[in-house]
Amino acid sequence: MHLGEILTTRQALVLMTDFGVRDGAVAAMKGVALHVDSGLSILDLTHEVKPFDVWEGAYRLFQTHSYWRDGTVFVVVVDPGVGTSRKSLAAKLHGGQIIVCPDNGLLTWLEPQIESVREINETLHRLPGSSESYTFLGRDLYAFVGAKLASGQLAFEDIGEVLPSIQKLEIPPAQLENGVLRGVIPVLDINFGNVWTNIPKALLEQLGSPDLVQVEILEGTTSRYEATLPLVHSFGAVERGQPLLYVNSLLHLAIASNCENFAQKFGISSGAAWSVRLQPASTM
Amino acid sequence: MHLGEILTTRQALVLMTDFGVRDGAVAAMKGVALHVDSGLSILDLTHEVKPFDVWEGAYRLFQTHSYWRDGTVFVVVVDPGVGTSRKSLAAKLHGGQIIVCPDNGLLTWLEPQIESVREINETLHRLPGSSESYTFLGRDLYAFVGAKLASGQLAFEDIGEVLPSIQKLEIPPAQLENGVLRGVIPVLDINFGNVWTNIPKALLEQLGSPDLVQVEILEGTTSRYEATLPLVHSFGAVERGQPLLYVNSLLHLAIASNCENFAQKFGISSGAAWSVRLQPASTM
Amino acid sequence: MHLGEILTTRQALVLMTDFGVRDGAVAAMKGVALHVDSGLSILDLTHEVKPFDVWEGAYRLFQTHSYWRDGTVFVVVVDPGVGTSRKSLAAKLHGGQIIVCPDNGLLTWLEPQIESVREINETLHRLPGSSESYTFLGRDLYAFVGAKLASGQLAFEDIGEVLPSIQKLEIPPAQLENGVLRGVIPVLDINFGNVWTNIPKALLEQLGSPDLVQVEILEGTTSRYEATLPLVHSFGAVERGQPLLYVNSLLHLAIASNCENFAQKFGISSGAAWSVRLQPASTM
Repeated sequence: MHLGEILTTRQALVLMTDFGVRDGAVAAMKGVALHVDSGLSILDLTHEVKPFDVWEGAYRLFQTHSYWRDGTVFVVVVDPGVGTSRKSLAAKLHGGQIIVCPDNGLLTWLEPQIESVREINETLHRLPGSSESYTFLGRDLYAFVGAKLASGQLAFEDIGEVLPSIQKLEIPPAQLENGVLRGVIPVLDINFGNVWTNIPKALLEQLGSPDLVQVEILEGTTSRYEATLPLVHSFGAVERGQPLLYVNSLLHLAIASNCENFAQKFGISSGAAWSVRLQPASTM
Repeated sequence: MHLGEILTTRQALVLMTDFGVRDGAVAAMKGVALHVDSGLSILDLTHEVKPFDVWEGAYRLFQTHSYWRDGTVFVVVVDPGVGTSRKSLAAKLHGGQIIVCPDNGLLTWLEPQIESVREINETLHRLPGSSESYTFLGRDLYAFVGAKLASGQLAFEDIGEVLPSIQKLEIPPAQLENGVLRGVIPVLDINFGNVWTNIPKALLEQLGSPDLVQVEILEGTTSRYEATLPLVHSFGAVERGQPLLYVNSLLHLAIASNCENFAQKFGISSGAAWSVRLQPASTM
Repeated sequence: MHLGEILTTRQALVLMTDFGVRDGAVAAMKGVALHVDSGLSILDLTHEVKPFDVWEGAYRLFQTHSYWRDGTVFVVVVDPGVGTSRKSLAAKLHGGQIIVCPDNGLLTWLEPQIESVREINETLHRLPGSSESYTFLGRDLYAFVGAKLASGQLAFEDIGEVLPSIQKLEIPPAQLENGVLRGVIPVLDINFGNVWTNIPKALLEQLGSPDLVQVEILEGTTSRYEATLPLVHSFGAVERGQPLLYVNSLLHLAIASNCENFAQKFGISSGAAWSVRLQPASTM
């Protein structure tokens, strides 16, 4: 194989897990991948997804994948059902990215972009010699298969049979009703404590992009935060420690406090239990 | 040097330390390595070994190395004795992997696989200009030497003199006596809180692979946990929050709680003070 | 482009941020960079700078950059003023390294080494399609521009106009007066809790390299630690748990406790409020 071929056939392999990097688990996955092809470029999305939190993992993948090249291969392992009968799959997106992961909801946010899904044939494609290990499919199956795909040694179509449907998390879409926007908190911008919603900027524009917005954050049916916030372009538009509403880097609405950790300050978290209500502040 | 030579002579350089990644220490090591050869592929095993914990570092290395290619060069720096007279060494394993590290017990678990050990000649092989720095051999010696080895610029035999013996930690081997299995807890599967033992699956098979096993975990001579656990293939075989015994990804016995952090729940840790007793549950 | 050209024109791209790696932010930056050039080598300095702490970021960069090759491109994003009118710049150091960052003091310690600074023309050099996002310039501008520079697709001179002056933090230089050394604590050696000062070893040599040094650490004008410490080569020269003065890996004076976290034990931190006084212990 000469250089031209290597440069054109290889794709980056990007790993996301809930394994952390305090032990050798992620390193073992990388070692397996480099066994398949020592020239592979392996990068990390994150390994700090909260353990077993498929909801968070699904959103991190959705949030980041579009910044990668078209043929990129993602191996995503957040897998509370490891060792049970849940399936393993590879999904090809329009544009050519491939996601390798367990079938447990990790593709929920990406579903509209999926071109084709196949179940991985574990008999054919498992790391040789790993058949007695049941608890580390990230190493024994997903990294191995991902590396074969990224290196061009295995074609997507040869992964296994077409999978007619996939598991999905139940996530209510953002909605506008009677002048009120409702959405969920899929994740926090965790290092800074900003609260991200799934409400697109475009929905707020239907309400005329008000300067001041009444914001309520709920855990279940209990109100956890309520205030009228300015809609601003950047954190620096308000004083340090002051709260604000802004458009985040995914063009969704988000809530923050300038140079402070809003989520920590007000005890806000993310996931199925959390929701947000927004409406233009009344201007009486 | 043309492409073919580069692809065949270069080996991956894998780093493990207790430095963490909150400062520039690991980055300085990588910068030094890329100075030696800008085309080197540098990967991380982990940098989150507990500071000064040679016991943990030794096991992490043992646990992960076999998943890497034969010629891989590992630089391992957990070095409470930095600046003292303890030696620096490079060890070549059967198969061709090389470990560069201080001589302080880090190779304890790997000893049976060692083909040859040499003491690094620090006069010959130190990063030029670093002679006044005494506290960062990871950068000034180990990364530099590791990169020279991985790039093919230095042969293992030219590292220094053969070292006739190495320092080792005292670790009692797992044993089966009068129907009772005894072992130690070399590390936790730290992100999930699973408790790993050094007892091979094969030893339990000598007791007939019982369905139910009586488990006791001790700190010194004090019992910290005692229960009868099912021996299962996967976490999902029991209800959430229920404890279980399983075969981990190294084919050793391990104790966990499904979708819970067992070690945290019961205050279990790892290292020299901790041990485990297992026996088939009596079936009266 | 053939192999020779690729090997000679590409430079490593090194990222430092306060984003952490718990979400997809750093990964999005890497995805953007690989879009520019899929063959780029991207490495991390650290992403664990304390959020918004320009002081710490400035020192981490200073502390580490010299260990990297001459043409290395650094993208540094610690940016409390994101979205405000603060400028974005690229600085070329003597020797050829380039730093891409906001103009907020991050280059304070590097200023003596700067050959030329240019303001980035954001109209010309922003990631296409990112104009509605105001809060993630690390991805939309800095990683994009850094990758163009590292890949050789953009020349430093084409970044934008020369910037006549840059923002700097106020940091008093280390000084020797009447036999007393005074300095600041720019950072902690954070994983081990050692306290680093900006006082060069050479200044202490002017006092005759005493064996025993009287050390005082102050927060503002309040004394937080006071003791007479031995000046030693390495931690192991004193008993475990004993304090010591040593020359750190940057050849500055530093204070530690052997195999212990000194900073945590005595409540010492770093930054503008902290200072150190040293003088040879009186030998009455």
